[in-house]
Amino acid sequence: MALHFTSEELAGRRARAVAMLQARGLDGLLIFRQESMFYLTGYDTFGYVFFQCLYLGADGRFFLLTRAPDLRQAQHTSVIDDIRIWVDGPEASPALELKAMLAELHLHNKRLGVEYEAYGLTGRNAMRLNAALEDFCKLEDASDLVSRLRLVKSPAEIVYVRQAAELADRALEEAHRTAGPGAFEGDILAAMQGVILRGGGDDPANEFIIGSGRDALLCRYFTGRRKLDPKDQLTLEFAGVYRHYHACLMRTIPIGEPLPGQLEMHKVAVEALEACKTALKPGRPIGEVFDAYARVCDAHGHRENRMNATGYSLGTTFAPNWMDWPMFYHGNPEPAVPGQVFFIHIIIFDSAKGVAMTNGQTVLVTEQGCEALSRMPVDLVVK
Amino acid sequence: MALHFTSEELAGRRARAVAMLQARGLDGLLIFRQESMFYLTGYDTFGYVFFQCLYLGADGRFFLLTRAPDLRQAQHTSVIDDIRIWVDGPEASPALELKAMLAELHLHNKRLGVEYEAYGLTGRNAMRLNAALEDFCKLEDASDLVSRLRLVKSPAEIVYVRQAAELADRALEEAHRTAGPGAFEGDILAAMQGVILRGGGDDPANEFIIGSGRDALLCRYFTGRRKLDPKDQLTLEFAGVYRHYHACLMRTIPIGEPLPGQLEMHKVAVEALEACKTALKPGRPIGEVFDAYARVCDAHGHRENRMNATGYSLGTTFAPNWMDWPMFYHGNPEPAVPGQVFFIHIIIFDSAKGVAMTNGQTVLVTEQGCEALSRMPVDLVVK
Repeated sequence: MALHFTSEELAGRRARAVAMLQARGLDGLLIFRQESMFYLTGYDTFGYVFFQCLYLGADGRFFLLTRAPDLRQAQHTSVIDDIRIWVDGPEASPALELKAMLAELHLHNKRLGVEYEAYGLTGRNAMRLNAALEDFCKLEDASDLVSRLRLVKSPAEIVYVRQAAELADRALEEAHRTAGPGAFEGDILAAMQGVILRGGGDDPANEFIIGSGRDALLCRYFTGRRKLDPKDQLTLEFAGVYRHYHACLMRTIPIGEPLPGQLEMHKVAVEALEACKTALKPGRPIGEVFDAYARVCDAHGHRENRMNATGYSLGTTFAPNWMDWPMFYHGNPEPAVPGQVFFIHIIIFDSAKGVAMTNGQTVLVTEQGCEALSRMPVDLVVK
Repeated sequence: MALHFTSEELAGRRARAVAMLQARGLDGLLIFRQESMFYLTGYDTFGYVFFQCLYLGADGRFFLLTRAPDLRQAQHTSVIDDIRIWVDGPEASPALELKAMLAELHLHNKRLGVEYEAYGLTGRNAMRLNAALEDFCKLEDASDLVSRLRLVKSPAEIVYVRQAAELADRALEEAHRTAGPGAFEGDILAAMQGVILRGGGDDPANEFIIGSGRDALLCRYFTGRRKLDPKDQLTLEFAGVYRHYHACLMRTIPIGEPLPGQLEMHKVAVEALEACKTALKPGRPIGEVFDAYARVCDAHGHRENRMNATGYSLGTTFAPNWMDWPMFYHGNPEPAVPGQVFFIHIIIFDSAKGVAMTNGQTVLVTEQGCEALSRMPVDLVVK
């Protein structure tokens, strides 16, 4: 069995989820977030691209409803014993099959939580679920229940986070090795991803961000790689991934020589990064991390060049998104707690001049403040 | 502007979507599938992990509502001129902002189609959308509208599909080069992904499937790589990806020597693959492709060892899923049409003996039948 946590740790997580269900007066939870399934049972798949539900009762009972290709997947990767299969066909109606299974558990007229905020539960499937369970039981959104548990990492999880961070550092070393005038972006990406996969890591939950020239001011992946110019700028935002735990880094690398203003922007970015780390303190609302970023940017005349958010939690996220809940934006009241892992990204994009500067680190919240999970300096590296 | 199709081709696609809206009596479409956005406008992002909507009216008008990090992304990758931004915050309500925009377009009491079957529209956001637009306009599921248009590829698209197929072939060559007794799965993955990225390709919309030993009987990715034993079996299912177009291949590679039964299973797999290709004919229901797979497996005593589906359409899919609509399962009435691209995967897993055999090719439906988009033989390769 390819379990990456002890059965005891997984059982403890389910026990805490059950306690939260009971505290909320819920009789069970319909789980659609793959990260929740992995967290509670070890179950590891991308089968959530079709209708798939893990039920966890307030009595601790749990079963999985999925398609045939995931039967063995669940057997090989998880502690789930009770695996049920629905079959594709023009008349397939897995939500109705789920209803019948819930009826067998005497859940008629009971209250169930639902993870509605899940890529694995498309709008269409959510509406079918609601229609199937209408007049059967009361449903309420409990998307946050397991996500809240996942937010603070256990010692066993932090081991994997640190391994992910080491893979991210190696990927940055590969970027420094391969970037330079005339380099092909595809070769840079291949080197970065390669060192992670060779290190036993996983694909990231979303693509690495790579952009140069005017596209160095983008912060999403897009298709179509180019060669770097003799004088250019290269923005990279990427994750080391180990056991699906993500640790991110971000850098803009001037090619040839820094563009006008880029040296100053780098100083501001590093100052902002340090201010954000100082603001990330146990007990303080994480919205203050954004405020620190904004304050430093604004003080240096970069108000128009900053983003509306400056990072987010990281964990065992699955495609299409490594950005875990919650996010650093103004006013976010969630408190920082030791054991949380966040990515702080500092983005300063001067649209008027077409100049980018970024920096970023993954940090672990400690009892005193936070610890950067990277051995790579934040200094400007020109290639 | 990094457009990968001419503005005329993109305009033609929108004109066909508009014609379908009019034919269905719809006044507009709320688009949440990233593949639809890419298809209609070129817009290329993973920003759909947050609330994001492209509106296309039956009058041809279109605008995008997204978050700030995607403003430049839309400007740099698409033909969308009208880009509107919603801002994160504890009180953020993008669905209500969307309603206000629709009201400006005088869509009160009109009929709008919605792409509810979208990873970019989670159950929670769909329910918020429905609540925001209740009593404002009539909504109906039109998830299939653009997907139907996307199903038949244009000549310009087929150029990219063929490039993707070439990258898949190179990845298989890398697998043959690196697989063998003692090889580390992570090194194999790195070599396969590396040749695709160096060739200007993209990340796949879901992870490559790699499994050995007992996990060679899985057909999903999972974390945790191992070294191959002196006698082993390695199952690989992967995609070359170019401009987000996918071309898949699948193979099981015996390591050291074939396991008992594996030679016979390979013969059956190849016979089934050929039978599927013969069954994929313009005008015939694609469910018959599954029937051909089932018939060959059953005739050779592998009824218990086969799947409930044997492949699916391929196209410009985005994470978390490269499996496009529609799928080869029994009774699927969708007709094959020239210009469609399908992945036929033949999977025979003997659970009792723990032996796997797979094969698979991407094919293009032609006027006469179908054409395999791979130059790699389907012969058994033992490493």
